[in-house]
Amino acid sequence: MHSAQLPSLAQLRQAYQTRAEQILAEFSTFLSFASVSSEPEHQPHMQQCVSWLANYLEQMGFTTQLWPTSGHPVLFAEHCHAGPDQPTLLIYNHYDVQPVDPLEAWEADPFSATVRHGQVFARGAQDNKGQCFYVIQALKALLERDGRLPINIKLCIEGEEECGSAGLAAILPSKAEQLTADFLAIVDLGLPNSQQPAITLGLRGLVALDVHLQGANSDLHSGSHGGLVYNPLRALSELLASMYTKEGAVAIEGFYPSTAGEEQQQRLHMHFDAAEYEKNFGVPATGGEQRYSPLERNWLRPTVEINGLRGGYTGSGIKTVIPAEAWAKITCRLIPGQEPQHIGSLVAEFLKNRAPKGIKVDVQVHPGGGVAVRTASAAPAVQAFAKAFEQVFDAPCAFILEGASIPIVAQLTHASGAETVLLGLGLATDNIHAPNEHFGLDRFEKGLLIIARAIELLARPS
Amino acid sequence: MHSAQLPSLAQLRQAYQTRAEQILAEFSTFLSFASVSSEPEHQPHMQQCVSWLANYLEQMGFTTQLWPTSGHPVLFAEHCHAGPDQPTLLIYNHYDVQPVDPLEAWEADPFSATVRHGQVFARGAQDNKGQCFYVIQALKALLERDGRLPINIKLCIEGEEECGSAGLAAILPSKAEQLTADFLAIVDLGLPNSQQPAITLGLRGLVALDVHLQGANSDLHSGSHGGLVYNPLRALSELLASMYTKEGAVAIEGFYPSTAGEEQQQRLHMHFDAAEYEKNFGVPATGGEQRYSPLERNWLRPTVEINGLRGGYTGSGIKTVIPAEAWAKITCRLIPGQEPQHIGSLVAEFLKNRAPKGIKVDVQVHPGGGVAVRTASAAPAVQAFAKAFEQVFDAPCAFILEGASIPIVAQLTHASGAETVLLGLGLATDNIHAPNEHFGLDRFEKGLLIIARAIELLARPS
Repeated sequence: MHSAQLPSLAQLRQAYQTRAEQILAEFSTFLSFASVSSEPEHQPHMQQCVSWLANYLEQMGFTTQLWPTSGHPVLFAEHCHAGPDQPTLLIYNHYDVQPVDPLEAWEADPFSATVRHGQVFARGAQDNKGQCFYVIQALKALLERDGRLPINIKLCIEGEEECGSAGLAAILPSKAEQLTADFLAIVDLGLPNSQQPAITLGLRGLVALDVHLQGANSDLHSGSHGGLVYNPLRALSELLASMYTKEGAVAIEGFYPSTAGEEQQQRLHMHFDAAEYEKNFGVPATGGEQRYSPLERNWLRPTVEINGLRGGYTGSGIKTVIPAEAWAKITCRLIPGQEPQHIGSLVAEFLKNRAPKGIKVDVQVHPGGGVAVRTASAAPAVQAFAKAFEQVFDAPCAFILEGASIPIVAQLTHASGAETVLLGLGLATDNIHAPNEHFGLDRFEKGLLIIARAIELLARPS
Repeated sequence: MHSAQLPSLAQLRQAYQTRAEQILAEFSTFLSFASVSSEPEHQPHMQQCVSWLANYLEQMGFTTQLWPTSGHPVLFAEHCHAGPDQPTLLIYNHYDVQPVDPLEAWEADPFSATVRHGQVFARGAQDNKGQCFYVIQALKALLERDGRLPINIKLCIEGEEECGSAGLAAILPSKAEQLTADFLAIVDLGLPNSQQPAITLGLRGLVALDVHLQGANSDLHSGSHGGLVYNPLRALSELLASMYTKEGAVAIEGFYPSTAGEEQQQRLHMHFDAAEYEKNFGVPATGGEQRYSPLERNWLRPTVEINGLRGGYTGSGIKTVIPAEAWAKITCRLIPGQEPQHIGSLVAEFLKNRAPKGIKVDVQVHPGGGVAVRTASAAPAVQAFAKAFEQVFDAPCAFILEGASIPIVAQLTHASGAETVLLGLGLATDNIHAPNEHFGLDRFEKGLLIIARAIELLARPS
């Protein structure tokens, strides 16, 4: 089908508007499952969520399979009736979400969707149930309009993106045949702002570590023992602080790859609105390496971030204790040239080698993780989605990078043999991974239109 | 009464043995009240505890008063029937206890006393309900033997020692007349080991601080924002680590008083058994300033200790978050020449002045605190108690210092106009302020005998 012959977007928009209320109700059901993959107590909610989603796709005419993994199952669905002359598009989403704590910071129940000012508030409203559901609604809209899809579609909707994708990663080699596709769309990304259409050309990689310090065999009185034992909380502070230079660089030997800084930035949309950032998040963008610009620090430079700290007494009043133990959780964002497990080992060894006498330092590097990803702006899939963005937004599509990670992308690209495109309609202000996550209904509609239009654009002239 | 004419200790020991079972049952009741002064939810248990104790003393023939304070009430009791020619001894104890967390580390309910291997296990078993109760049992033994006490006795049993004694401190000026005494015995101290009788000649002072860091207005995704915002957990680690030099000294300008190091150590029992310490606590004594010996570091040098840290996600799995906030709790142990609120301000300013751009640092210095205390080994009260220790242990009494603090001692000494003696039968291995606190029944008996004998020794010949 040639671009000029495509049905009008107005028609799809009209169809969406007609069904908007019902779609929102169904979306709310999808959001009501507390599918927190990293917390074992939510195991039943994971199961209920994926069963509901599989059933939904079956009703649409998809063939579905649940692929068991060491963790949560992967939902694989396909609708491959466009014939061998048409390409196959594999679309990746995930049905798991982040934990909700601190729960008290939410204005409403994170698993009971509420709409305020055109935004749907719930855990997963954007990341990734919102983006998953506009993909499904795009497919549904095409099926309802035409009774068919113009290309072959496969969906891979996993349940462990928020905890490292270890289960899917492990089964990918055995699923390569079923996953084979010409194009792979990772629909879990975002835009620089709500008016700027954009395709993402790369992601940072990820590796996670748990740090545990053990001092004495019991908590001790800080008066009777202060000056005698090495306080594990002092040791933890010193160890973590030593990971950074005064200029905000990572001080761990070998952390930066020799290739760092060689990337071409010319083609990237590098506009960063510092005032807007400070207004949105309440702080200036003062983190990271001071000799780089904010977007360079977020897109092109790796980081080591402390995600959690714990030890001793933190209740009200005073407890004069030198605790026996202390804990920290760390994740590193990686750039091309950094292998996740290697970087994890470097950080672990750095910390363990600096353990003061009297403190035992254990560091567990989480298995898996993900390498950084880069795609080419000239690739046909990128071009088709960029054109869809331009038509829906009626504005030129920019190319950006993303500081976040989707650990499975590199392996899924390899297993499917597809050409990958990274896209999505998230905004930095959506509070993903934070209290009061939300997603705009305007962007839900645009997402639906972009997916539908890109599918039409990827279809070969018949 | 002359020393040579005193009744035999054997008689008191025999009387204790006869009543030991009943005393243990009553002690267990005293321990059953969850009198955690720093945790508001235990308010009813504080009330129940002090009411029970007042009633117990009334039954013994004491006149009791509950002194209301801004916090928990003080129990004042007196038995002043020895006449104006006999001296008055004021004895200080406290009925409040430390919090019990981590609760899972206790082998049994901390508020249900159990006896194992001759040790009573419970929160407060030593600090300070155990030491308070052998004082009371000593008085009861004398009353039961003689129908009278040889000197005038006042008891001041407070309910906020574990959270700073602010209530008692505030009412002391108005209670000076009632508290007037010749001697003040602070029975909340310990011994170098179970075979070594000792009197404590000094305590460190204390000041406590709460630290709060605020970064962004919400938790943020560590990928989308990593390299942009300054992570509050990094800032907290850096701030806390900067409080110490590499050699373990406190790096805060003005922290050490100009008089530090001038104390006479010759008279002190300075034996420290490094191997025994490591065996007991599972770590070598590697904390504090490396150029001082372990006991100098614990007795003669001030410290800054981090008592608690908290921020971000510390559950299972991974949460890729840059938290908005971080918290720490700090206490400083002080030596003569350090004023608590002044030192608190120095630490607070040190931390606030180092706040990186993008991080708001708030530090609250807890009101009150306490100065360091020193007493003279030649003072009559010290000499009388030292003699009592020698008779009960049948060994020469040593003089020691204590690294811990009893914030109220200096003010109570001032209000009572008394000559103070610091003593007790705690051991470093009693796990005070920690899970599985315990106190030996052998030491309970010795404590009873020492208090009774010292009272006899303080009586003037009639």
